[in-house]
Amino acid sequence: MLKAVTIEPILKVTDLYTLYYFQHKSGYRFEGESHDFWEIIYVDHGRASGLNGSEPYELKKGQMIFHHPNVFHNFRTGVMTDEVDEDCDIIVISFGGNLEVLEQFRDHIFTLSMYERNIFKQILDEGKQVYNKTNGKNLIYKKENPFEQEKVPGAKQMIGNLLEQLLLSLYRKQKECPSQVQALPLQSLGMEYQMVRQIILFLEQNLYNNISFADVVNHFNFSETQLKKMFRQVTGYSVMQYYRKCVVGRIEYHIQQQDQNFTELADLFHFSSIHYFSKFYKRETGRTLREYLKNSQE
Amino acid sequence: MLKAVTIEPILKVTDLYTLYYFQHKSGYRFEGESHDFWEIIYVDHGRASGLNGSEPYELKKGQMIFHHPNVFHNFRTGVMTDEVDEDCDIIVISFGGNLEVLEQFRDHIFTLSMYERNIFKQILDEGKQVYNKTNGKNLIYKKENPFEQEKVPGAKQMIGNLLEQLLLSLYRKQKECPSQVQALPLQSLGMEYQMVRQIILFLEQNLYNNISFADVVNHFNFSETQLKKMFRQVTGYSVMQYYRKCVVGRIEYHIQQQDQNFTELADLFHFSSIHYFSKFYKRETGRTLREYLKNSQE
Repeated sequence: MLKAVTIEPILKVTDLYTLYYFQHKSGYRFEGESHDFWEIIYVDHGRASGLNGSEPYELKKGQMIFHHPNVFHNFRTGVMTDEVDEDCDIIVISFGGNLEVLEQFRDHIFTLSMYERNIFKQILDEGKQVYNKTNGKNLIYKKENPFEQEKVPGAKQMIGNLLEQLLLSLYRKQKECPSQVQALPLQSLGMEYQMVRQIILFLEQNLYNNISFADVVNHFNFSETQLKKMFRQVTGYSVMQYYRKCVVGRIEYHIQQQDQNFTELADLFHFSSIHYFSKFYKRETGRTLREYLKNSQE
Repeated sequence: MLKAVTIEPILKVTDLYTLYYFQHKSGYRFEGESHDFWEIIYVDHGRASGLNGSEPYELKKGQMIFHHPNVFHNFRTGVMTDEVDEDCDIIVISFGGNLEVLEQFRDHIFTLSMYERNIFKQILDEGKQVYNKTNGKNLIYKKENPFEQEKVPGAKQMIGNLLEQLLLSLYRKQKECPSQVQALPLQSLGMEYQMVRQIILFLEQNLYNNISFADVVNHFNFSETQLKKMFRQVTGYSVMQYYRKCVVGRIEYHIQQQDQNFTELADLFHFSSIHYFSKFYKRETGRTLREYLKNSQE
């Protein structure tokens, strides 16, 4: 009598968010975002760079990186060290699921095999059945908000299955072909990037301390001009823009947790009063604390 | 704010049974079986034929057929109409899952695209990680009883995902490329096959009537000699061997259902006594009714 062996998936893709193929002209900059689902960026042509959390990354053709949930990430065409920028085509896919095993992908860059690159091709083909096509500047297509109803049956399931196969293949690669997997921080990055990394880590350590640009400059021995220039080149922001963006993210995290009221949060973030705290939040986001609380409860 | 779209699979492969690649020499015959899980047969080289339930089938290189759960099926190398037999390589995969949508595959033969053939190649590659290799006569490999523990992580999941992709692709093909899908009974089959089909249907209609070979011959206008010869050629059995095999299957179905006791079953199948009924079952299967009942309750 034959006994069945049950397939126990080691990871599951259960939700689809976006699928993009971008043809970016040299000089394109995406200022950055973070969200509570997964994202992968694969470079199909040219080179790209940016930040993954506090870690600068560089991707060549055929390479990809994971942005874990809630990790801030941005993007620019070309690599940061070169004076000459370049065009860059990328595939961006965002998704959710039971993906705890991918924790080990954090801050890693993968060089894809032909098999893995071919999976991207298949995902794009299936994507035509479930994602809306929007033409825009510099884009072949830009697809977001998959349809509930697919044009061809099983297209969403196909995308999920293919993504799982890609993830499983990368999971094996990390064990079997470590030469195809690079851990950040990139050793190849120059002193300037190490500087930016250190500044970001310093900012993150001081999210609750309401620091000023003078505090940053005083903490480091770098020239103020060089610091400003490099930070903007790598992150797309000024130091204090970047800091305020992180502070806002942390404030919103606490509001979602609902563990403290606004007065307590103003104290926690070392604002001198609830008044300045509210004003800061409104100026940065365009909405009031109370509006955010209401939205996050819906 | 991006909204997730949940992937709702239209079919799921959840269990693996066997994976075989057989290199059969011409003249090979498999007498047949039925089981409560799914099976597919794909012809990688040469031609094959057999029965799927009451329907004779023929497969050329690149074609496959589904054997639905509990459908009797057998197999021989070469096609039934030719005097000259031939070698035949086949891939056989058996599996279980939530596959109700495949009801529409019943009694259909599929001609596979290169994409679909390539999925079989990938399944065989992954199979090396989870199935035992047994060398035997005329076989490249024969794999059954997958290991719970796989040699490479996610191999069972890969096989499940690939099977789902194959099934989805065939599901679409049935809608989009009807020319690549043939429904049984095969129009190309000669009068002899139509005869065998009709006999099998007659036997199945009379499972509860304890009929004799004379009843079959009387019902049809065929020559007795021709009837015997053709039936054995197509099914691998004599008419009455085949009939008794079907009756045993039906008896066991009722024992599993536990809706009637043995005396009631003897009546239902028109045996003159429980004694003859028990004796019939013991002679056909080598075990007693009570032994089967006990096994089926475990």
